[in-house]
Order: sequence, then C-alpha cells, then structure tokens
Amino acid sequence: MRVLMIGAGGVGDAAARIAAERSFFERWVVADYDVARAERTVRAVTERHTEEGRFVAAQVDASDAAAVTALAREHGATHVFNAVDPKFTMPVFTGARAAGADYLDMAMSLSQRHPEQPYEKVGVMLGDEQFAVADAWQADGRLALVGIGVEPGLSDVFARYAADHLFSEIDELGTRDGANLVVHDDEGNEIFAPSFSMWTTIEECLNPPVVWEKDRGWFTTPPFSEPEVFDFPEGIGPVECVNVEHEEVLLMPRWVDAKRVTFKYGLGDEFITILKVLNTLGLDRTEPITVKGVQVSPRDVVAAALPDPATIGPRMTGKTCAGLFVTGAGTDGQPRRTYLYHVVDNAETMEAYGAQCVVWQTAVNPVVALELLANGTWKGAGVLGPEAFDAVPFLDLLAAPKPQGYGSPWGMEDR
Amino acid sequence: MRVLMIGAGGVGDAAARIAAERSFFERWVVADYDVARAERTVRAVTERHTEEGRFVAAQVDASDAAAVTALAREHGATHVFNAVDPKFTMPVFTGARAAGADYLDMAMSLSQRHPEQPYEKVGVMLGDEQFAVADAWQADGRLALVGIGVEPGLSDVFARYAADHLFSEIDELGTRDGANLVVHDDEGNEIFAPSFSMWTTIEECLNPPVVWEKDRGWFTTPPFSEPEVFDFPEGIGPVECVNVEHEEVLLMPRWVDAKRVTFKYGLGDEFITILKVLNTLGLDRTEPITVKGVQVSPRDVVAAALPDPATIGPRMTGKTCAGLFVTGAGTDGQPRRTYLYHVVDNAETMEAYGAQCVVWQTAVNPVVALELLANGTWKGAGVLGPEAFDAVPFLDLLAAPKPQGYGSPWGMEDR
Repeated sequence: MRVLMIGAGGVGDAAARIAAERSFFERWVVADYDVARAERTVRAVTERHTEEGRFVAAQVDASDAAAVTALAREHGATHVFNAVDPKFTMPVFTGARAAGADYLDMAMSLSQRHPEQPYEKVGVMLGDEQFAVADAWQADGRLALVGIGVEPGLSDVFARYAADHLFSEIDELGTRDGANLVVHDDEGNEIFAPSFSMWTTIEECLNPPVVWEKDRGWFTTPPFSEPEVFDFPEGIGPVECVNVEHEEVLLMPRWVDAKRVTFKYGLGDEFITILKVLNTLGLDRTEPITVKGVQVSPRDVVAAALPDPATIGPRMTGKTCAGLFVTGAGTDGQPRRTYLYHVVDNAETMEAYGAQCVVWQTAVNPVVALELLANGTWKGAGVLGPEAFDAVPFLDLLAAPKPQGYGSPWGMEDR
Repeated sequence: MRVLMIGAGGVGDAAARIAAERSFFERWVVADYDVARAERTVRAVTERHTEEGRFVAAQVDASDAAAVTALAREHGATHVFNAVDPKFTMPVFTGARAAGADYLDMAMSLSQRHPEQPYEKVGVMLGDEQFAVADAWQADGRLALVGIGVEPGLSDVFARYAADHLFSEIDELGTRDGANLVVHDDEGNEIFAPSFSMWTTIEECLNPPVVWEKDRGWFTTPPFSEPEVFDFPEGIGPVECVNVEHEEVLLMPRWVDAKRVTFKYGLGDEFITILKVLNTLGLDRTEPITVKGVQVSPRDVVAAALPDPATIGPRMTGKTCAGLFVTGAGTDGQPRRTYLYHVVDNAETMEAYGAQCVVWQTAVNPVVALELLANGTWKGAGVLGPEAFDAVPFLDLLAAPKPQGYGSPWGMEDR
C-alpha cells in the first residue's frame, strides 16, 4: 500500500505519527499546501521512529484536482487519504479517482442550504456530490471510503455493530459527542482554543442541523435545536448537547435500519455564544471579502486568528468522548438503551504520540481502516460509509493492545 | 480657506454634504485611499448642490505622512481635516504640519496599555503623541484642533460652556452617549450593523477605560466597568452605560477645572457580548496575521465584514444622543446636576443630507469649527482641544436656524 495523505494539519500530523508504528504500508506521502508543515510532520515521525524513507513530504494545492492526480501518480499512490478541510473534499476526491487510486476521507462534500426553507428542508446534503458519482467509482472497481474519522467514522462503525450484534430493532441512532477539555496559556489562564478545526466547527454548527426519520426522510431544524444534557462516561459528566449537521445522519440510514438518526454535539454555552456572534457579524462566511485591497474569506481569518489545534496539546488537560447512543429493542426483544463510546485522555496521546487527543482520536480511525484495507479484511467498490463494512475486525484492531492492535479500547454502557 | 479632508468614509462623506451648504471655504478636497469612494462623495455633493468645482476628489495613502504633505501642497490646503480611522492620526497630523497647514481631527493618536498593570495604570494615553509636539506647533504659529467631532468635540464644548456659564464648582464632567437606533435588512429583520466605525468602536471599548480624578490623575479600570443606567432625553430612555476609553477624559482636565472626568457609552448587552467574543477570539487585534498567504489585520476584517456605517442610513430608525452630565455647584452655589445634550433623529439627517444620524452628528461639529476658524471667531496655535475655545459662538452657530446656522439645536436638562 502506498498512501498519499493530503493535509498535514492536526489530524494529518497525528495520523502520520500513528501510522509510523504500523508496517502495513511501504510509502506515506505527507502533502500540504505549506510544504514546511509537511516537512515538520515527516521530521517528527522520523525522529520518533527512526523511519527510513517510508515518509516523504510534498507540496500540493488541495483545491486543484489535477495537482492531486499528478502527485498521486508521481508516488504511485494506491490510496489517497484526504486530511484537509472539507471545502477541498471534491477536488481531492476527484483527483484520486483520476489517478486510479482508492480514497478515504473524514468529512464529506459540503451541503448547501435549501434556498427557501433552510431550517425545514434539506438542500444539497453532505456527501451528495460524492454519492452522485458512486456508480462511476463502482464501475471502475475503486473504493471511496467516506467519513472514516471518529465522527463520522467510529460512530458509524458503532452503528453497524449495534445493528448486527446488540439490537433487533433500533429506534434511534444518536451520535453524542462531549468533552471536558480545558486549554491554558503560558501564565496558566484558561483560554479559548478549539481542539478541532474552527473552519469545520463553524461549518457544521451554523449549517441547519439535519435529522433523519424513517417516515419523513432527511429534514433540517434551526441551529442549536433540541438541547439535551447527556451524561458522558469516565468522569466527563453531563454536557449540554444540541443538534448539529453531521455526516452520520447522512450515512447511517443508507446501510443501517433505524427509525431516527441524529447527531448532537456538546458545545457548551460559551461556544454557542461565540458561534452566534460570528454569525451575527458575518464572520462565518466563506466567500472572500475585500480588506484593504486583499481578498480573504472571513472564516479563514477566524480560524487563522486562533491557536492551531495541532499546537495546543501541551497546554490542554481533560478527556474527549465520541460515541453512539442507541435505543430500541435488544436481541432478546426487551427495551435497550446502550451508549457505545471511545474516550481519549489528552495526557496519554500527548505522551505516546505528541498529539492532542481530539485530533488523535480522529486520526486513528482512518489508519485502522487503511490497515484493514491493506490486509484485505475490508474490501469494496463504490462510495461507501464505514457502516458498509463489518464492525468487529475494526473494533478489535482498534482496541487490541500494541503491538498487535492500536491499544485504544472502546466501551459500552447500558442505561 | 482651502480644506484637504482625508477620508471619505461615513463621517467624511457627511461632512462634505454639510459643508456644501456653507460658503466659508473655496476648495474642499475629498481624499481617500479608495479614490472611487472620494469620487462618490464629490458626485453626491455636486448633484445635490450643483456645486461647480469647489469639491474635488483625490487619492491618498493616509499611512504615508509625505503623501499627505504632497497632496496638501498640491491643493494649497490651509487646513487638513482628518476623517480617517485613528490609526492614521499620526501620519496625517505630521503630514499636515510639514505642509504648513492647520489641522483638525475627531479622534486622537492611539493609546498603548501599561505593560504590567493595564487595568490600573495608564501607559501611553490617547493624544500623548500629539501633545508631545505641541510646542513645535505653537512655535510654528499653527493650530492643531484635536478631538472636534461630537464625542470628543461637542461634549468638550459643553464642558467649557458648563464651566463658564452654569457652574461655580464641578464635581464630575461625565460624557454619556446613548441611542435607540435599529437597523433592518431588506426583509425587515433587525440586523447587527454598528452606526459608527467598528474599528474605532473595538479600539475604544476594549482598551482599558481611562478615568481622571483631581487628586489621582489619570488611571484605568477593566473594560465595561462601573455600569450605570442613564436616562437619555427625547424618547430614547434608559440605556446601560459603561466606562470606555475616550478623548474627553484626556482633554477636559487640561482646560476645565473639575474633580472627576469620565466617559460612559451606552453599549447595551448584545454589543458587550460581541466585543467580548471578538476579544476572546483575538479578532480585535490590529497586527496582521497570515491567512492563506495574505497578510491582514483581524480587526480590519471584522470591520470589512459588516455593512459600511455610511450605507445603513436608509435602513435605520431612531435617535442618537451625545451629551455631558455635569454635577457640582451652580453659579448660585447650590447643588446642580445638568445634562447638556444633542439629539439627532436619523429620519431628519437622511432626509436633509442623505447621511445617517451618527456619522452626521460627528461630521457637523468639525464643519462648524472650520467656519469659526475661517471667520476668525476661533483662533489659536498649538495642540488644542475644543474646550480651549469660547463655547458660545460654537453652540450658537450649531443651533441657529439655516441658512445663518446649521439648524441643529442642543438641549439642557436640570436633574
């Protein structure tokens, strides 16, 4: 397997650090618009693991499909692993196919709201542009494994697992995400520093949240709808969660039978206020505006003004939890409510990988998936979500102690 | 009199429209970095008043003192009227002096916070850089009339008037600013659209507020300190006001005897939340950051993302009030509490000048001052605030009905 990874931000950097411990690939190209960033990742991996030539850095413009194709061909990439902001999903996806490579991403092509009723009806949905060419991928015998981070990704694997092994009937597949992370500055003062791409966070939190119901299909609500206090495990505790647009809601109903599919994110009050203010000021907008003669996208400026999520790990404490709350009837026909989850402690990922926990948790899943694809455990063609594959080998490989597995256990709690 | 006005933003545009009705000058050059903006102002004035050649447009980089000097010389300017963001105060001020012109501004050179105790002690204060060269201006026989908008400006004139005609002893000179303005979008929904330069609003509201006390001198507090509900006249009603850094506090104690000088701004809850969020995200910062290869100042982006204050007039309703609350002993020795104020209705300034009320209210005062300088009623040399001049002719000319005066009455309320 020869991997071309596009993007050496927080997640890309962590993915390279995780992959460096595994032997399933012969080449891992780290490509970024900013080649210095790609080189930094390669240097970090090489120093940590005395790797010899498996990792190489390259420059790429992810907005240019032809550039992605050329780079994939140059390195004979069998798999293009997309680790950039989702606004570049389509050029990377298209570029991979043109190069005859398989493709993985952690965020799907972007949505566009319904022009008249944005908070009731869906317009263009997350992933629509990718699913539109699914037949072509299938005809080519090529696989696009979409949404294989942690959420979407591990959450979708949980959905498959719940349907196959825990439930006879599912009422709701509810992804629930929460954390108790805190970041401090050098003086020890708590500061605002999102642990994940601010660009993506704005995108998913201010877009109309999407919900799926069996008798209604996909529909939208106003932002921050249906607030719910969810109790997260392993000491994180209760966090207020609200509906957010997320790929799980678009992916799970395609492969898993359920009455309702939702995604709720534990944003907390401060973050909700910040997002509302950005929206009020028009700073969430992505189309460039003219500022003193230069063209910039306000949302890019917001992201650039904050600390890089890849750099805050050393100043962060706490745990992050991704998981799926499933309700319905168990295999015995009795009512069942089960939370399947994956908790990561920042102190542990910093120590073992030099990566903060949220990006590490996102990054580990595509590496596990690549390993399953490399050894033939997972295979397929077309545009497929994680729930299209058998969940057990994935969950086993993720949880198995090193060096056999990735040493990152998941948990399950009946409520 | 030949005026070179630097800046054709909201206030500059309104000043030109006001000046066009007056005959005290022979030339008014409208200069802007964006010459199209300057041309728009000249065109608007020419259409309204069939002016022939008194107003001309020019391009200028206000950050370049030499460019200001060259343009002032080219047009034989007797007065440089600075109507740009205060970050350009020093180059325009310096450029005017080099050209041998007199100078007026509405916002003084910027402050720099105290490096160790920013919320207790002053660092570099507003106007310090200008007062530092006051002797040179005086030696040249040239006048820099600083802070001659509405606040600072008319508020300072009120201070002079109160000291000369209403009070025998002053406890506090408290500028109090409030409004009930609302802006709607094309669909009639209320939107967030500051009626004044967002760059300047951020600057003054997030800087440590400054207070002056006779036995303590100047000192600072944390932002948004000493909240107070002030009842504004003419139907505006009660508005929550907080301490804000403002020129009045730096100007009034230099010429008017008082025990305490403050400035409080009626920001309201929503605006305070927005300013706190901008500060949390680092979007109030002025130093450029790199965004996708270009350099921009986050604060410039915030300002550029909002509607131009000069353009929101037609969608705005309500009134704005600037004024000075003076407490102490009246000329009869009895306790006195008097609010001197100036209320402007947006509907009226839109109808008469095509300018929204807040920029109009700022713009009318330097035009009145220029007329008093042109006819010799006001004269002086050095760096002087409005309170260094006789208040009566100013207040009379402002309030007198057109065409003798500017037809904009002020009021007084004993409380």
